[in-house]
Amino acid sequence: MKRPKYKQIIEYIKEKIGNGEWPIGSKIPSQRTLAREFNVNRSTVITALEELAADGLIEGRMGKGTVVVSNTWTLLANRSSPDWGKYVDAGFQQPSRKTVQEINQSESNPDLIQLSKGELSKDMFPLSVMKEMMGKVAHNLEAFGYEEPKGYLPLREALSRYLRTLGIQASPASILIVSGALQALQLISMGLLQSGSTVFLDRPSYLYSLHVFQSAGMKLSGLPMDEAGLLPQTIGTVPRGRAILYTNPCFQNPTGVLMSQKRREEVLRLSEKEQLPIIEDDIYRELWIDQAPPPPIKSIDQNGHVLYIGSFSKTLSPGLRIGWIVGPEPVIERLSDIKMQTDYGSSSLSQRVAAEWLTTGHYQKHLENVRDQLKKRRDFVLEVLAEHLKGLASWNVPKGGFFIWLNILPPLSMKSLYAKALAEGILLNSGSIYAQENGNFIRLSYAFASSGDLKKGIYQLSLIIKTLATESGKK
Amino acid sequence: MKRPKYKQIIEYIKEKIGNGEWPIGSKIPSQRTLAREFNVNRSTVITALEELAADGLIEGRMGKGTVVVSNTWTLLANRSSPDWGKYVDAGFQQPSRKTVQEINQSESNPDLIQLSKGELSKDMFPLSVMKEMMGKVAHNLEAFGYEEPKGYLPLREALSRYLRTLGIQASPASILIVSGALQALQLISMGLLQSGSTVFLDRPSYLYSLHVFQSAGMKLSGLPMDEAGLLPQTIGTVPRGRAILYTNPCFQNPTGVLMSQKRREEVLRLSEKEQLPIIEDDIYRELWIDQAPPPPIKSIDQNGHVLYIGSFSKTLSPGLRIGWIVGPEPVIERLSDIKMQTDYGSSSLSQRVAAEWLTTGHYQKHLENVRDQLKKRRDFVLEVLAEHLKGLASWNVPKGGFFIWLNILPPLSMKSLYAKALAEGILLNSGSIYAQENGNFIRLSYAFASSGDLKKGIYQLSLIIKTLATESGKK
Ligand SMILES: Cc1ncc(COP(=O)(O)O)c(C=O)c1O
Ligand SMILES: Cc1ncc(COP(=O)(O)O)c(C=O)c1O
Repeated sequence: MKRPKYKQIIEYIKEKIGNGEWPIGSKIPSQRTLAREFNVNRSTVITALEELAADGLIEGRMGKGTVVVSNTWTLLANRSSPDWGKYVDAGFQQPSRKTVQEINQSESNPDLIQLSKGELSKDMFPLSVMKEMMGKVAHNLEAFGYEEPKGYLPLREALSRYLRTLGIQASPASILIVSGALQALQLISMGLLQSGSTVFLDRPSYLYSLHVFQSAGMKLSGLPMDEAGLLPQTIGTVPRGRAILYTNPCFQNPTGVLMSQKRREEVLRLSEKEQLPIIEDDIYRELWIDQAPPPPIKSIDQNGHVLYIGSFSKTLSPGLRIGWIVGPEPVIERLSDIKMQTDYGSSSLSQRVAAEWLTTGHYQKHLENVRDQLKKRRDFVLEVLAEHLKGLASWNVPKGGFFIWLNILPPLSMKSLYAKALAEGILLNSGSIYAQENGNFIRLSYAFASSGDLKKGIYQLSLIIKTLATESGKK
Repeated sequence: MKRPKYKQIIEYIKEKIGNGEWPIGSKIPSQRTLAREFNVNRSTVITALEELAADGLIEGRMGKGTVVVSNTWTLLANRSSPDWGKYVDAGFQQPSRKTVQEINQSESNPDLIQLSKGELSKDMFPLSVMKEMMGKVAHNLEAFGYEEPKGYLPLREALSRYLRTLGIQASPASILIVSGALQALQLISMGLLQSGSTVFLDRPSYLYSLHVFQSAGMKLSGLPMDEAGLLPQTIGTVPRGRAILYTNPCFQNPTGVLMSQKRREEVLRLSEKEQLPIIEDDIYRELWIDQAPPPPIKSIDQNGHVLYIGSFSKTLSPGLRIGWIVGPEPVIERLSDIKMQTDYGSSSLSQRVAAEWLTTGHYQKHLENVRDQLKKRRDFVLEVLAEHLKGLASWNVPKGGFFIWLNILPPLSMKSLYAKALAEGILLNSGSIYAQENGNFIRLSYAFASSGDLKKGIYQLSLIIKTLATESGKK
């Protein structure tokens, strides 16, 4: 005979409290969530919670939901657990912004239409070649342990050859392997910048959605952009040794803007004049659609001004967690020391698989396929946009990358748009995440969702915009 | 016809300077190093350097060696590169200690006898099963991308079952996958502790060799140990919410000490009384030799006082870069948010391979083999020690792990011992790295070197000790 449901709930909660997973002071899941998980009515959940409250284990608190107030052991021995809440609030690394946390969570929800997700669709994942590459690595495997501080040498050698095709001369000694471009930024923040330094950057920018520099006490200072990229003339005189310029010149996240050749030269010239180092985040470079973008700023940098960042996340798979930083050797040495202090290097398996992709030439072939697919997807979405959002939004035509920067025309609240869309099963990234404060923007991605979802999502979006526009017109 | 050697050196250096790998202000390799690399006399190197100096590219500076002072472009255009030296010195993360950096480098030198290295010997690497596991993962592979914030669910599920065998009840939701135990410490430092907090720890301790807490402004406060582990009575009253206790209760690094059952209970009791959270770094647990160690402190923790850390680095391979943190859910959530901000999660490949090891049962079988091997190695080294170091050193008999904590008896300088051993091709970790300030200690590892090397290394060590003891006796 099965125990009644409310007993099961009680036991479940007692176990969570008992083994310390839900320590004193922590909030338990809402009644609604518990009801869903146990597939019962809310009244059954309430019965269970009342019994637990009568036992003195939990307590409803105004505005805080139901929290754990003691456990069988504290009841017995009057001991209590550490005030973890204090610790959780203490660290210097700020928590992600609420919306970003929510998006991180919602992005792994397969039931939502992902209209913004910055990742290649599963159907561009090169499954059979990936299996082959792994098989090769397995076949040739030798015992592996901690890697060299700068990373697996054959991978750095392969990257050195690959970078040459982009016009960048970099010996393996001036390349550091990292676990993705985000870690590259984290290491730069920990290793090269003092608290109080200034990070100049395009505005809007992906960097605004993170805390990587702000948590270490740096100030972000946004620069205006036009359709050729950021406008370097707007930087005044720069504090020597205490500033850096971050830019994302190819198919920028979130606007899709491609920096022109001329603008690249201007940016480098300013950097040389002001002795302002540049972080060139170039992880979307290979995803061009119409024609190859101008060479990296790093390729015309003769004085070691540029730290160049790349990654396999956007072209192959973010699950590899493999990226790289290229720069002057003393800087790379400093960053590799910090990398060693942080996690002793990146996965040996991922590094070997990445090296295999490069050395066999499969990476280049795969890129060609991705570009074809992205072209189809972009053109398809542009058609759908023309069909459903004409008059409701305006947009650019990106020359590569994942994103269309959609400007919603009717004046309406982006908060409501985000919430209403989510309620209808559509996840949006609104421009404010990237510090786009004037006007209403959405980062639309044509890279991830299926064509069916893209079509349906954009159509529903048009309806939501119309509804909200009418409502706000009425007020 | 080949260009003369000194021309080759000039071109090599010009290229390094020209492409910005050696920016202005950076030190070029020493004459000795260049002579070795190009296989020439020092006089040839000097000829090359003189020509470069005459060109105005480099300059000898008092006490700084030879530095780059300009490059062809700066000569042309009077532009200069950013003062990277300022940046390299600026970040809040302190550089590793010089000795530790030197050891990190020297540990990948295959010509040295590694008497201290904390890693399993290559001949315990389970190569054929590792290939099989990778093959299985490749075979069953599906498209993978960014993982869930807490890590690949099947791995967390497998860990949850595995942890139960150690007496720890932890649902997958209270487990965070990290890229090794070091990253676990880094995340705790970034996420849970305020600058000015105190980290209590056994002394000596592995933690002293790192800067993970110190760089974030925390103070390490060492506690005395006896043969049953750290002595918790020595902690006075603890600042609430601003302190944590770090301990490594199984086969401690560097002393090899195993904390007794009774001591574990005392530590937990203190922690409960003082509301002092515990970090239990248990990465050597499975490497027991004579009998299984007492259950983890976490297994008797009913109130969520303990953050429990494990890793595959010491048992399987550090190259996987897979570890885990177990703790109360709100704490795990906070740490997983920081993990997302740091590197968006650990390698999908490593996580899948690790899950395969656990679910197939191969991990447990492999551990049995490792224990057998470690027993043989330990017993062998104890014999060699008895043969060569009797009267020159004293030591404990470790019950597991990798290390013998060797106390050198004659009064001599550990700096000289380290240097002389290195000159003879033997790499030692001296006790001072771990903040053992009284007496002369070496961390001896029986896990890594071949039996031939262990024998030879210990014999040579005995000769060096004798020589130094005589010398210091003479003074
Ligand atoms: C501009 C930019 N830089 C860096 C990253 C981080 O990428 P990775 O997965 O390589 O850490 C992203 C990911 O969204 C990005 O858009
Ligand atoms: C006690 C202790 N903790 C943590 C680590 C770091 O191990 P991992 O490779 O899992 O990051 C080590 C490695 O030497 C160690 O000895």
